[in-house]
Amino acid sequence: MTSSSTACLLIIGNEILSGRTQDINLNYIAKKLGAVGIPLREARVIPDVPDEIIKAVNECRAKYTYVFTTGGIGPTHDDITIECIAKAFGAELEINAQAHAILKDYYAKQGTEINAARLRMATLPVGCRLIDNPVSGAPGVALGNVYIMAGVPRIMQSMIDSVVPELHGGPPVVMQSVTCQIREGDLAADLEAIQKKYPEIDIGSYPGVRDGQWITQLICKGTDPAQVGAANQDVAEMVARLGGVPELG
Amino acid sequence: MTSSSTACLLIIGNEILSGRTQDINLNYIAKKLGAVGIPLREARVIPDVPDEIIKAVNECRAKYTYVFTTGGIGPTHDDITIECIAKAFGAELEINAQAHAILKDYYAKQGTEINAARLRMATLPVGCRLIDNPVSGAPGVALGNVYIMAGVPRIMQSMIDSVVPELHGGPPVVMQSVTCQIREGDLAADLEAIQKKYPEIDIGSYPGVRDGQWITQLICKGTDPAQVGAANQDVAEMVARLGGVPELG
Repeated sequence: MTSSSTACLLIIGNEILSGRTQDINLNYIAKKLGAVGIPLREARVIPDVPDEIIKAVNECRAKYTYVFTTGGIGPTHDDITIECIAKAFGAELEINAQAHAILKDYYAKQGTEINAARLRMATLPVGCRLIDNPVSGAPGVALGNVYIMAGVPRIMQSMIDSVVPELHGGPPVVMQSVTCQIREGDLAADLEAIQKKYPEIDIGSYPGVRDGQWITQLICKGTDPAQVGAANQDVAEMVARLGGVPELG
Repeated sequence: MTSSSTACLLIIGNEILSGRTQDINLNYIAKKLGAVGIPLREARVIPDVPDEIIKAVNECRAKYTYVFTTGGIGPTHDDITIECIAKAFGAELEINAQAHAILKDYYAKQGTEINAARLRMATLPVGCRLIDNPVSGAPGVALGNVYIMAGVPRIMQSMIDSVVPELHGGPPVVMQSVTCQIREGDLAADLEAIQKKYPEIDIGSYPGVRDGQWITQLICKGTDPAQVGAANQDVAEMVARLGGVPELG
């Protein structure tokens, strides 16, 4: 399975690492990118610590086509993502005229002033592009191949939705699955033989529980729909041969 | 905020990165470790690719007191975590007598044989310790400071629950919070002053939506309960002073 573009997600936030907040952004982003043929290859959850943010951004922007970050772009003292990413790029910060205009307009409509704290949200790296935020005004920021987004899911979703059309994707990844009640240990050898027959297809086996019963879900994934279909068909036939009832998905 | 021990989680699994599965293990592990004073400092989601697993394990085991991994320890061809971690440590694999006995017993009770695929789950690094798995037989594995656990949440939970009592923790992290309807930009300056007054306390500000209304949750976190309480009290007074209604949590 090859693709020209790859992606990495940096989830910046102590609240995820402390367990106070359950992240749901990774899942949304993974699906969005997968649909346009940009596989998410790695995700990291890192704390609100400047050196950690700078190191992770520099490592990942060198390794992947696109890096997305969530969290830490508001007006409070713990929102340090943008200044850290500017440092990672060696970029100066400036009041971004376009962002300033957006914020002025947004807060004017709310009958509020832009104070020093809110002005920080228009203090952006020289040379950046803005990411539209129809939900709460303050834009996201793209710098090089790094896309800096909000952590609040509703805002993040609107940002990535507006970014995706400008990315260079590949053929979308297609998935088909077979679910059965055969335990993994009883199908492992036959499944491996199918994996060897289809080296371009990524075949995964995932045990789980449904209605108190162990189930095994077998997923065939790849960018060639015909190959995915053929591999999945072989998996279904294997399940039937081993005495199971294949449920196609 | 200082602690003698730190932790990192490696979530190994293509199914999380593709968006097929929503991870819920990070949140469970973060809370479990936090309660015994071992802050989770980083988490990474990495694919089922040997070089990626080996590199991440070696980086993280050098950097953190404890590394936990989830996923990839079953009997199928895509379960490669244990052999990769053995490679990371330069450890040979052998049939572990204790694990073999556990599996024999488990499958005998189910009226099933141990075949070659299942025997892989007893093929473990020389010098490892076993982690009890009351749910599905095959044990987890501890090697040095790395704890290798299943990805299925029910199994993972039983494994970490049995591991936690043997870890060296510190004073547990205490959290208190104030929720209000003041927007972040209107309290940022006052909040920063409180953060400066309590340098040992980690004060975070998290916007969100509740019943269609923007809310701001302000969290004080630290290992000294008296300091956390004092900082939280200052935050509550700040909210009242700014015309809000502080909800204590």
